[in-house]
Amino acid sequence: MDNTRIDRHRLWASLMEMAKIGATPKGGVHRLALDDDDWTARDLLVQWCREAGCSVRVDKMGNIFARRPGRSVAAAPVMAGSHLDSQPTGGKFDGALGVMAALEVIRTLNDLRIDTEYPVELVCWTNEEGSRFSPAMLGSGVFAGVFPLVHGLGMTDQDGRTVGEELKRIGYAGREEVGGSDVDSYFEVHIEQGPILETEGIDVGVVTGAVGQRWYDVTLTGQEAHAGPTPMDMRRDALLGACEVIDAVYRSAVDNGPDARATVGHMRVYPNSRNVVPGRVTFSVDLRHPDDNELARMDSVLSEICLKVLRERKLELGLHQLFHFPPTEFDAECVGLVRDAAERSGYSVRDVVSGAGHDAIYMQRVAPSGMIFVPCEGGISHNEAENISLEVASAGCQTLFNAVLGRANRERRAA
Amino acid sequence: MDNTRIDRHRLWASLMEMAKIGATPKGGVHRLALDDDDWTARDLLVQWCREAGCSVRVDKMGNIFARRPGRSVAAAPVMAGSHLDSQPTGGKFDGALGVMAALEVIRTLNDLRIDTEYPVELVCWTNEEGSRFSPAMLGSGVFAGVFPLVHGLGMTDQDGRTVGEELKRIGYAGREEVGGSDVDSYFEVHIEQGPILETEGIDVGVVTGAVGQRWYDVTLTGQEAHAGPTPMDMRRDALLGACEVIDAVYRSAVDNGPDARATVGHMRVYPNSRNVVPGRVTFSVDLRHPDDNELARMDSVLSEICLKVLRERKLELGLHQLFHFPPTEFDAECVGLVRDAAERSGYSVRDVVSGAGHDAIYMQRVAPSGMIFVPCEGGISHNEAENISLEVASAGCQTLFNAVLGRANRERRAA
Repeated sequence: MDNTRIDRHRLWASLMEMAKIGATPKGGVHRLALDDDDWTARDLLVQWCREAGCSVRVDKMGNIFARRPGRSVAAAPVMAGSHLDSQPTGGKFDGALGVMAALEVIRTLNDLRIDTEYPVELVCWTNEEGSRFSPAMLGSGVFAGVFPLVHGLGMTDQDGRTVGEELKRIGYAGREEVGGSDVDSYFEVHIEQGPILETEGIDVGVVTGAVGQRWYDVTLTGQEAHAGPTPMDMRRDALLGACEVIDAVYRSAVDNGPDARATVGHMRVYPNSRNVVPGRVTFSVDLRHPDDNELARMDSVLSEICLKVLRERKLELGLHQLFHFPPTEFDAECVGLVRDAAERSGYSVRDVVSGAGHDAIYMQRVAPSGMIFVPCEGGISHNEAENISLEVASAGCQTLFNAVLGRANRERRAA
Repeated sequence: MDNTRIDRHRLWASLMEMAKIGATPKGGVHRLALDDDDWTARDLLVQWCREAGCSVRVDKMGNIFARRPGRSVAAAPVMAGSHLDSQPTGGKFDGALGVMAALEVIRTLNDLRIDTEYPVELVCWTNEEGSRFSPAMLGSGVFAGVFPLVHGLGMTDQDGRTVGEELKRIGYAGREEVGGSDVDSYFEVHIEQGPILETEGIDVGVVTGAVGQRWYDVTLTGQEAHAGPTPMDMRRDALLGACEVIDAVYRSAVDNGPDARATVGHMRVYPNSRNVVPGRVTFSVDLRHPDDNELARMDSVLSEICLKVLRERKLELGLHQLFHFPPTEFDAECVGLVRDAAERSGYSVRDVVSGAGHDAIYMQRVAPSGMIFVPCEGGISHNEAENISLEVASAGCQTLFNAVLGRANRERRAA
């Protein structure tokens, strides 16, 4: 064990202070990207970073960077952070934990008067949630070159206001080019948003990568018919076909190992009248797997069951893949550093694969990256009931501290 | 074969004239109960009935009766009819065929100067469809004592207007008590609204009865969860449970003989977001069978699968039966008369069970009743594409003529 300890009560106080901005009566947060509460939260973060002696920069996407200098002026920074925007009825830890943990890392380095070889830089990404402006992870996406800047600034909310206009309105349309500077590495603490760590009683999840995703829209079209006079064998019931597809898709996930996921979250039935045989059903399919080959196999199951249903139930099929997001493998060194960092402080660990999207997934495209998961109560997130304890928050933060310090003080390679 | 023939071209001309009232661009009819088009249609019907020498009465529910006197002044009438109201995007034959066929029977009796022992009475029932005012078959229901008059008059449309107010507005709030007079018998020609007769190439369906119905609302409640991080075995997915229930319910109908029906026409998924595991699903179940014991068996299958899903998928269940409508058996003499009537004119026949509700089903509660089905194209109804040919219409009308004449000229029993 190490005696370099973060201040867990200071971390918690910062989390609670930040959670007041956009707080909802049920204990959650409503702080949509670039709204007035996000503005207030950003201002508070910048104030805290400056008080911690950091130089603060903002890029053209509104991403905020707060640097604590390293001994080497030329070295690229070891970055840590996450986001401060929330879902419409979100929780107070999703995103905020990663940013407040990065701040606590810098404050602890200051307290302990630790100099690092590499700069340590806090980052707060714009519009991670994707609730107000689609898609999610927009700030880190532009930073990593996934989307062009003009695309990021041009995204509109439902009232037609663009990211660019809103950044100007709240004073966060920075001058710095987006992604123009080198990054040594990137670390992010985040609540798990799932039940695995809590169920198994694990303190820290070492995130080895993220699942690949394939999203589809499926439409099955049959024939509306009067529920009474139409015999079962003369029906072309779109809902019955949909149930068979859903059942097969779920089974393909259950059969494909513990990291496979299949979800049908959205469904509409037409004409949706209780005594009319459904003539059309549309539904979404969301397939996830950490292995792209296995994901392709799940894709085949979907295609095959759709074709079978089409043939046997005499339905017409529309099967449209919205996107294919390949699996991410985090940098082996960063993953190892996270594992060591957690174990050094006595935390129980297990490797996990992120089932959801995170800024770190885009960052891995441009810099060695790693993630730290901590358990959240009941696996619940994107919900005002989202919750973690002070101990859980500090386990994540302490692990981040150890990993960032290890990385920032490693021997510099020849340029 | 007989030489008493209805005038098929006059029948068709009346159908086409009536179909102009509320005609839609796609060839259907929009003529909701007691709206201005229903008013116009009623006025035209009354005019035609008076021109055919009938005395016309209207009861307090707006049901229209047009009587051609019999030789016996004291005898109760042999009634024939149906309804003139339509679905919002309905067809031109559903209901109108039964009323126009009854009119053609009276016109033919006049042409051939046939006196009948019993009076022959056309009836046009108020609000059969139930589209504007719920429930369906309201006029015949009050006539048959299924609903009290005050209930029938008090039903409101979505703008809050009552049946009673609307009857007054269009001048069809009659003075006659509803159901106060004796009825000898009731016959109704109707399109099948299903595909059996067309598929088998049958001219006339002899309707022996109507299926019993049980309607339910089912709610399955699980737990919303993030689609990515939540392993399949830790989910409480309400949609997956719903698919299993739907599958079992459909199989119970398929296994329960050709007259069993199971339909899930209405379904809603919550929160209906593509990357959230559904926390709640509500859906309707509509079970039908001509045998009440078999219907009870299907009800058991529904209960059992719901309990199984509840247990295995850790869901909460709300299972609410909206109503249980027992099967109807039409009067054996009337059914026999319909069969003989069709065969006498050379039509191919088969016995069928009505899967849908009709005014005749309520009438069977107060008088011996029978129904005549004719095939409709593709089994399609409640749709602007609903269609039949002149030949099909006249087969239904000729059968009605033969049956009504046979019944109205049978020997009178001692009172």
